[in-house]
Amino acid sequence: MESYMNLSFVLLPKGMPGGDMAKPLLGRILGSGDFARSLATRLVYSGFQVVVGSRNPKRCAGLFPSAAEVTAQVDAVKKTNVIFVAVFREHYSTLCDLTDELAGKILVDVSNNTEINHHKESNAEYLASLFPACTVVKGFNVISAWTLQSGPRDGNKQVLICCDNQEAKRTVAEIAQVMGFTPLDMGSLSSACEIENIPLRLLPAWKIPVFLALGLFLCFYTYNFIRQVLHPYIWEQKNKFYKIPVEVVNSTLPCVAYVMLSLVYLPGVLAASFQLRYGTKYRRFPDWLDQWLQHRKQIGLLSFFCAALHAVYSLCLPMRRSHRYQLINAAVNGQSHARKTDAWIEEEVWRMEIYVSFGIMALGLLSLLAITSLPSIANSLNWREFSFIQSTLGFIALVVSTLHTLTFGWTKAFDENQYKFYLPPSYTLTLLVPCTVILAKIFFYLPCIHQRLRRIRNGWEKGRYVKFTLPSATGEYSSGESSSNV
Amino acid sequence: MESYMNLSFVLLPKGMPGGDMAKPLLGRILGSGDFARSLATRLVYSGFQVVVGSRNPKRCAGLFPSAAEVTAQVDAVKKTNVIFVAVFREHYSTLCDLTDELAGKILVDVSNNTEINHHKESNAEYLASLFPACTVVKGFNVISAWTLQSGPRDGNKQVLICCDNQEAKRTVAEIAQVMGFTPLDMGSLSSACEIENIPLRLLPAWKIPVFLALGLFLCFYTYNFIRQVLHPYIWEQKNKFYKIPVEVVNSTLPCVAYVMLSLVYLPGVLAASFQLRYGTKYRRFPDWLDQWLQHRKQIGLLSFFCAALHAVYSLCLPMRRSHRYQLINAAVNGQSHARKTDAWIEEEVWRMEIYVSFGIMALGLLSLLAITSLPSIANSLNWREFSFIQSTLGFIALVVSTLHTLTFGWTKAFDENQYKFYLPPSYTLTLLVPCTVILAKIFFYLPCIHQRLRRIRNGWEKGRYVKFTLPSATGEYSSGESSSNV
Amino acid sequence: MESYMNLSFVLLPKGMPGGDMAKPLLGRILGSGDFARSLATRLVYSGFQVVVGSRNPKRCAGLFPSAAEVTAQVDAVKKTNVIFVAVFREHYSTLCDLTDELAGKILVDVSNNTEINHHKESNAEYLASLFPACTVVKGFNVISAWTLQSGPRDGNKQVLICCDNQEAKRTVAEIAQVMGFTPLDMGSLSSACEIENIPLRLLPAWKIPVFLALGLFLCFYTYNFIRQVLHPYIWEQKNKFYKIPVEVVNSTLPCVAYVMLSLVYLPGVLAASFQLRYGTKYRRFPDWLDQWLQHRKQIGLLSFFCAALHAVYSLCLPMRRSHRYQLINAAVNGQSHARKTDAWIEEEVWRMEIYVSFGIMALGLLSLLAITSLPSIANSLNWREFSFIQSTLGFIALVVSTLHTLTFGWTKAFDENQYKFYLPPSYTLTLLVPCTVILAKIFFYLPCIHQRLRRIRNGWEKGRYVKFTLPSATGEYSSGESSSNV
Repeated sequence: MESYMNLSFVLLPKGMPGGDMAKPLLGRILGSGDFARSLATRLVYSGFQVVVGSRNPKRCAGLFPSAAEVTAQVDAVKKTNVIFVAVFREHYSTLCDLTDELAGKILVDVSNNTEINHHKESNAEYLASLFPACTVVKGFNVISAWTLQSGPRDGNKQVLICCDNQEAKRTVAEIAQVMGFTPLDMGSLSSACEIENIPLRLLPAWKIPVFLALGLFLCFYTYNFIRQVLHPYIWEQKNKFYKIPVEVVNSTLPCVAYVMLSLVYLPGVLAASFQLRYGTKYRRFPDWLDQWLQHRKQIGLLSFFCAALHAVYSLCLPMRRSHRYQLINAAVNGQSHARKTDAWIEEEVWRMEIYVSFGIMALGLLSLLAITSLPSIANSLNWREFSFIQSTLGFIALVVSTLHTLTFGWTKAFDENQYKFYLPPSYTLTLLVPCTVILAKIFFYLPCIHQRLRRIRNGWEKGRYVKFTLPSATGEYSSGESSSNV
Repeated sequence: MESYMNLSFVLLPKGMPGGDMAKPLLGRILGSGDFARSLATRLVYSGFQVVVGSRNPKRCAGLFPSAAEVTAQVDAVKKTNVIFVAVFREHYSTLCDLTDELAGKILVDVSNNTEINHHKESNAEYLASLFPACTVVKGFNVISAWTLQSGPRDGNKQVLICCDNQEAKRTVAEIAQVMGFTPLDMGSLSSACEIENIPLRLLPAWKIPVFLALGLFLCFYTYNFIRQVLHPYIWEQKNKFYKIPVEVVNSTLPCVAYVMLSLVYLPGVLAASFQLRYGTKYRRFPDWLDQWLQHRKQIGLLSFFCAALHAVYSLCLPMRRSHRYQLINAAVNGQSHARKTDAWIEEEVWRMEIYVSFGIMALGLLSLLAITSLPSIANSLNWREFSFIQSTLGFIALVVSTLHTLTFGWTKAFDENQYKFYLPPSYTLTLLVPCTVILAKIFFYLPCIHQRLRRIRNGWEKGRYVKFTLPSATGEYSSGESSSNV
Repeated sequence: MESYMNLSFVLLPKGMPGGDMAKPLLGRILGSGDFARSLATRLVYSGFQVVVGSRNPKRCAGLFPSAAEVTAQVDAVKKTNVIFVAVFREHYSTLCDLTDELAGKILVDVSNNTEINHHKESNAEYLASLFPACTVVKGFNVISAWTLQSGPRDGNKQVLICCDNQEAKRTVAEIAQVMGFTPLDMGSLSSACEIENIPLRLLPAWKIPVFLALGLFLCFYTYNFIRQVLHPYIWEQKNKFYKIPVEVVNSTLPCVAYVMLSLVYLPGVLAASFQLRYGTKYRRFPDWLDQWLQHRKQIGLLSFFCAALHAVYSLCLPMRRSHRYQLINAAVNGQSHARKTDAWIEEEVWRMEIYVSFGIMALGLLSLLAITSLPSIANSLNWREFSFIQSTLGFIALVVSTLHTLTFGWTKAFDENQYKFYLPPSYTLTLLVPCTVILAKIFFYLPCIHQRLRRIRNGWEKGRYVKFTLPSATGEYSSGESSSNV
């Protein structure tokens, strides 16, 4: 009698001896739409004996895999205690005829909504209120119909599950596992709302960083437009409007990339200052700082995207007609004036060789950071490696970018002619935040400050009596996560 | 008596009380080749007590991990009911001496073939026919010996399993799980042929798209060669053959990239027309359209690859000697003729600034599409995010590419001199398919058409009596997958 | 009585009837630090009933999720037989008061060290020596506190587990699974040291390849500096120091990339020679060759990184001031001398068109290799596809790179003026290893050699009596892994 596998019990027909192991698992589905069909296909493939309950079995039969039996709803729910409900929320009430047959069974709600927080209570909780005698488990809604049908070889394999009853949750989790998916426990049925919102989200973590980048782009673009196009037009009557599509964009992109990169490291500096100020790591950061710390990855990737576009734009410069015409004119005029036979200006040559060189280095470092942000690579790194690349290499990239900016600017900041409409060159503006970050980082590495920070991150608190050098019975990985902030 | 874990039963030596949990799991292998060795290593590592049955135990002993016992085949199969068969198909018949000992046991066929569909029946089915008293399970053949030996930390973790007996399949699935792999149920033993073919496949999904790209490349290359090299040679006796390696290639690549990108969106348009024509989504698409819909990802990635190569080729243009010599000649001649002191042509400048700018934008968008096609990123997106990027952003990329092409062409299409051998400039040819796609998309967004499409995708059918506004008891995710086609 | 799920037994309170399935799983933690907090959060989320044992329960209570009970250590360990020990190694001894309460239970050691091999024996073995009556399981230390808290949706999901007791190991493995992680069995407790070192590793596989690349870079940089900067300064008093940041780097990077690429394929050639020499594949390679074979991926990726940087540097060349000035000077001088009205040199044009073309092709191929090295893509390829791309396409990339180098060099090697300080042009030096590899590969494809190699890789041994053409009862996947070496 002990010779059964644990899944058999919950899924085998009731009254069937557990020892009869050749009996297939039972998959019961209410509903005959697309998702029901995909679910039936997957269950048949995973060796389940599938019965689909439909209001109109005859019309639907042809749409399901031939191994699945399509029957009336009341017949479909009889023989098992786990039933998938693949019905619109609007039609949950039509199932009320089955209340008696469903009593005591596990209903798996696989539904999705069309809008975030469309209804006050989640579909799963609504279903639970309609069938108080049943146990409702929310799950499978995050799996697309396509993944269901083709099997979990591609596509996301995680099935988020929540339920108030641990036993029912584990049963459904095991069905998900037999189907080749990875169940992930999301707690009680009150999480159903969160689970139902997941398939409706549209890159929520990217919203703020993208608007930040667009805002910075607009500001710097206007600033550069005024200095590079409007000023020569008003003061010298020179038509430089051809600079709008490429050259002004190419002056703006590095500003955005550089400021965004420094904004990746600024919240870490603020967090460290906060910890130093209050002498503890147990005080919560303000919400805006918490939010900022969580968006660093997205800000960094947008910074890399702008830097890469800047590189492509820069490389395009000598390809353009305007560059060609200017060169020819310079050569022709150089000859006709006949005064200057050597165009060579040693200082300009050096300036450009150096800043191009720093620019390529910064781009190379940033591309390493971007590559290690890919989920499949980030997951294969341990914390120390990830922190070395994102924190140490990233900070070096910031320093090299600063050198790129400084050598690009050279002595322009001290040249009166560069102040168009009294506006300083845009590169001087961008230096503000990055230099603050770099100076703060240097400050935090002063021995006295560094040691205090380290002690705080190991759990030390200002004004608390400390018996041991390290607090007793305390987990030890505190330094890890938090030091990555700085 | 209830104190055993489910795995213990099937793997523990027979007659051993289930409650004795300290007993190790038993791993039995027939065969002593490379795969047998890797399997033994992994089983030993996962805590199995391994016995290897070899025809020549003495010679093989040194090649196996020391914790594995190497013995005669007849001794190895005695004590357990799951046996891995790691023997060439050619030598299955040599196992027939063991028929009595193997009766009633589960044989795991791990073999691979050297050619696709080499034999009429799969190895696993052949083994099953030799040992009718055994249950044959196919599995582990998709795992490389290297992954087996080093553990599933890197490499594909999925073990595809098929078997006619559900119990045996689950037993082997659990062994795979204990070894750290993810079992995936592939149905009955008749799937063995498919599973055995998987390790022999060579990028099947890429074959048609790659040949398509090569075909398009050849056509456009010939066309451009005739217009850019042959025509000046025949009509003006000008030697432009130096254009063959770089310039003609660089005129061809954008044509291929642009046409391929439009071919990603054309099948969606065709599918929508098909649905509109027949007024239902339940009618199957013709096979060629189904195939096409499934290859869109590969076609899109090849389009991006061509576009990226086009960018690199274009950026290389000003670096070449030929460009340098032409510039110097232009400057020198401009001076000597002394008529034209200003080379500047405002229209040409604007044309180039604008099309370079559109080109960079299109490349930026395409690179976002390519990055989100990486499996690890695609898996972390929900359906709405994936559809937004691949469908919406991708279509914007097609529109920007069209603007890039149109501004590149400028007025050339209306210039008689551009019609070499009466052949129009190649860019005009490439506009055909993309413009069709864009116009069709606009057509589908007309309110009346859009609503009809939406209703069809929600399950509505032409000529069917519809009781509810939305069909009753129907799953609800229909719009998702199908609307991504358009 | 058979109606319980297997996990219930080990985790349910003792004396509780197994059939009472609504009882939650019990999670017991000793320690109140960051890791304990994250662990508690995850366990609560996964439906465990969590009790945390702290030396100072009152102070800690606020830091834990409200669903977790914080109590004295002695109370926390009473009701279950699996206890997480989240305490510093230094404070293990403070737990000795609990020796009686802990006897017979499973202790899960989740600790990490701060240095590799910090202590002689691993933390887990030390804990086992302190509590001989307990079973110690090592696990969860490779999971970061962040992943624990946020659930395994992002981040590495593998929990490496080792223990001397199979039953205890499986119990903890199942807890990990319920928490959504993937347990991976690492064998007996003596592996604890290895598991504890994993989170402290800093990209160990990259160390040798990175130093190799840096070493090659330094050598070639010095060589190119002497030829391109020092020689003109000493012999012609020409100041070419402006070449240091960009041009000398850009001459050095392709040398490094090209030599590194050939070093990817050299060990395969050596391995094949070794196998041919000894007439068997069962003889172990020398350690240095084994090491080299395992680092090929990293060497190849560094080669691609250098090649990509070389491409960016090359594309930057025409953008620089120095290029502009040289062009203007050439134009102006060309005019003033008035002798040469056509700057065009047909041979130079062809040389550059061809080597630029080969360069782009090689870069395109290398980028395909790099992309298929991404874990998420490599895992989706079968062995044949991976080998086709990495071995066949990679070797084609080496051949195309060789053509790029040869056409770049053109006739320079035979031009006496190119031998500065009697040093040949650097490209001639780099040809040495790649040409050896290509010639060896051609040699191995001679029919007689090829067949001998194939027989060796199928298990044939020189001087061994071979009864069958293929050895009996031998696994068959030998050719796969090893042929990828060549």
